[in-house]
Amino acid sequence: MKSISIKSPATIANLVCGFDILGLALAEPYDLMHLEIRDEPGLQIIHEDEHQLPTEPEKNVAGAALLALMEEMPVKKGFLLRVNKMIKPGSGLGSSAASAAGAVYAANQLLGNIYSNDDLIRFAMFGEKLASGVKHADNITPCLLGGVTLIRSILPLDVVRLDAPEIHISVVHPQIEVRTSDARQILKTEVSLKQAIRQWGNIAGLVAGLMKGDHQLISRSLEDVIIEPARSILIPGFDEVKKRSLEAGALGGGISGSGPSIFMLSEKRSTAERVTKEMEAVFHRMGIDNKTYVTQLNHQGISLNENEHAIL
Amino acid sequence: MKSISIKSPATIANLVCGFDILGLALAEPYDLMHLEIRDEPGLQIIHEDEHQLPTEPEKNVAGAALLALMEEMPVKKGFLLRVNKMIKPGSGLGSSAASAAGAVYAANQLLGNIYSNDDLIRFAMFGEKLASGVKHADNITPCLLGGVTLIRSILPLDVVRLDAPEIHISVVHPQIEVRTSDARQILKTEVSLKQAIRQWGNIAGLVAGLMKGDHQLISRSLEDVIIEPARSILIPGFDEVKKRSLEAGALGGGISGSGPSIFMLSEKRSTAERVTKEMEAVFHRMGIDNKTYVTQLNHQGISLNENEHAIL
Repeated sequence: MKSISIKSPATIANLVCGFDILGLALAEPYDLMHLEIRDEPGLQIIHEDEHQLPTEPEKNVAGAALLALMEEMPVKKGFLLRVNKMIKPGSGLGSSAASAAGAVYAANQLLGNIYSNDDLIRFAMFGEKLASGVKHADNITPCLLGGVTLIRSILPLDVVRLDAPEIHISVVHPQIEVRTSDARQILKTEVSLKQAIRQWGNIAGLVAGLMKGDHQLISRSLEDVIIEPARSILIPGFDEVKKRSLEAGALGGGISGSGPSIFMLSEKRSTAERVTKEMEAVFHRMGIDNKTYVTQLNHQGISLNENEHAIL
Repeated sequence: MKSISIKSPATIANLVCGFDILGLALAEPYDLMHLEIRDEPGLQIIHEDEHQLPTEPEKNVAGAALLALMEEMPVKKGFLLRVNKMIKPGSGLGSSAASAAGAVYAANQLLGNIYSNDDLIRFAMFGEKLASGVKHADNITPCLLGGVTLIRSILPLDVVRLDAPEIHISVVHPQIEVRTSDARQILKTEVSLKQAIRQWGNIAGLVAGLMKGDHQLISRSLEDVIIEPARSILIPGFDEVKKRSLEAGALGGGISGSGPSIFMLSEKRSTAERVTKEMEAVFHRMGIDNKTYVTQLNHQGISLNENEHAIL
């Protein structure tokens, strides 16, 4: 195989109470990537989208991840990467993770699957480091593995894929900027033991609810008493979106990553559609441009793009 | 049915990283209880053990729980309770919960199962309040439901039974006193966000490991970075017991409840036997009397005592 064409999905990190540990993959949106392996060494990147991202490999998120992989590669080969980025950078939907994980996943396929998932996560984290200054795997892991994923520990890396039932997901991306550094700084470095205990009850409930396929337990556990109260003030309209979404039947939800996107989980597609309309209405009334998605849990993660020539 | 004879098992609360939320039931030891329903109102309690516990219903843990149930009982009846307590009070093995939960479970059987598990937990918490001043359900819940249980929330009460694989358990009860009030006071009221995140990664890992039946994931998740470092200093020999148990092949473990008992989980019975010998050796060398158990996860919780006349 000389080339491969893939879809690399958007992801939601910081799954409500599961700050820094739980994430999930979305069926949509996704980036389209085409990777070609070549005998001449070196890496060339072409962006076929309008995001004006740098294409020098060292300054490109997918490039940084691929370079990390290429450094360990047993054979000296080169790559040509073409990207059509559909996940908007800065949306809080794992745009940089999709680039980084997609690139190394595709390379591994072309190399005959010589690297483990843990290796791929390790390479892709170089892309995240370039994007945000921090080597985190919150979005890379669900992007690669699909479904709902747990990062039990980052050092040493210990990731677990969790079984989960069908879940429909509403997402709204209001066109405002929340800087990851602001979102980090607004968090207190200490939390009360009482709140920590409440949070870990919810985390245990959420994991159990997902694995049992118990939507009501999932709903009761979708509560974050530590991060959301601090971060939600950076997103105008957050409280109203949440209130109206729950009234419309959502199981619960919160901030996607460090924002500004907000997501809500629902048991049924029709509920997720109603919820998305409520989200849209809140930002429309505030005069904030926004983009919404009605999508669902992506159980597979990165997948082959069967229809590459039509799209990329 | 006019009378019933039951076994009410010992339990382990504060399951390592799952402080205040995760507990499990042991196959042994257990209390033996015989409850008789009578037309004449009132409650009489007879202890057939050597623990010199008060038998006035208001001052007796099982009595306080039964009185709470009797207050809501639709018919006016009385009870005679006979108890042979095998779980030593103050051991950290849920002795008071076994009394309280056993009594209300038995009464509910005699009344034709008119109360839900949530009701029984609510009644039994009056016993815990008498014993420790706090209405907690950490031991009552696994005692009643069996297996491994999660208390997602205490107010409102939300308990979840978790699937778990076969697990063998070593327990040592050193004959020293750890007062619950000391164990509470030694905890800091604030924890760092960083440690809280590490703890909730472990909790999520432990729940996932139990539900998947993945003993290695259970083992990696049996880490408590918040409570154990503080409380373990109240138990002489704790660090050595833990070190030698892990060397002998235990998956992990920690303080049972608020101590002084220490427990270790193992995948195999033979490992649990080796671990128990190590535990015994540590306290023997220190000259501290101790009692050990090699037992296993009790998937059923409270059960009927088929052989009542021989034992009670």
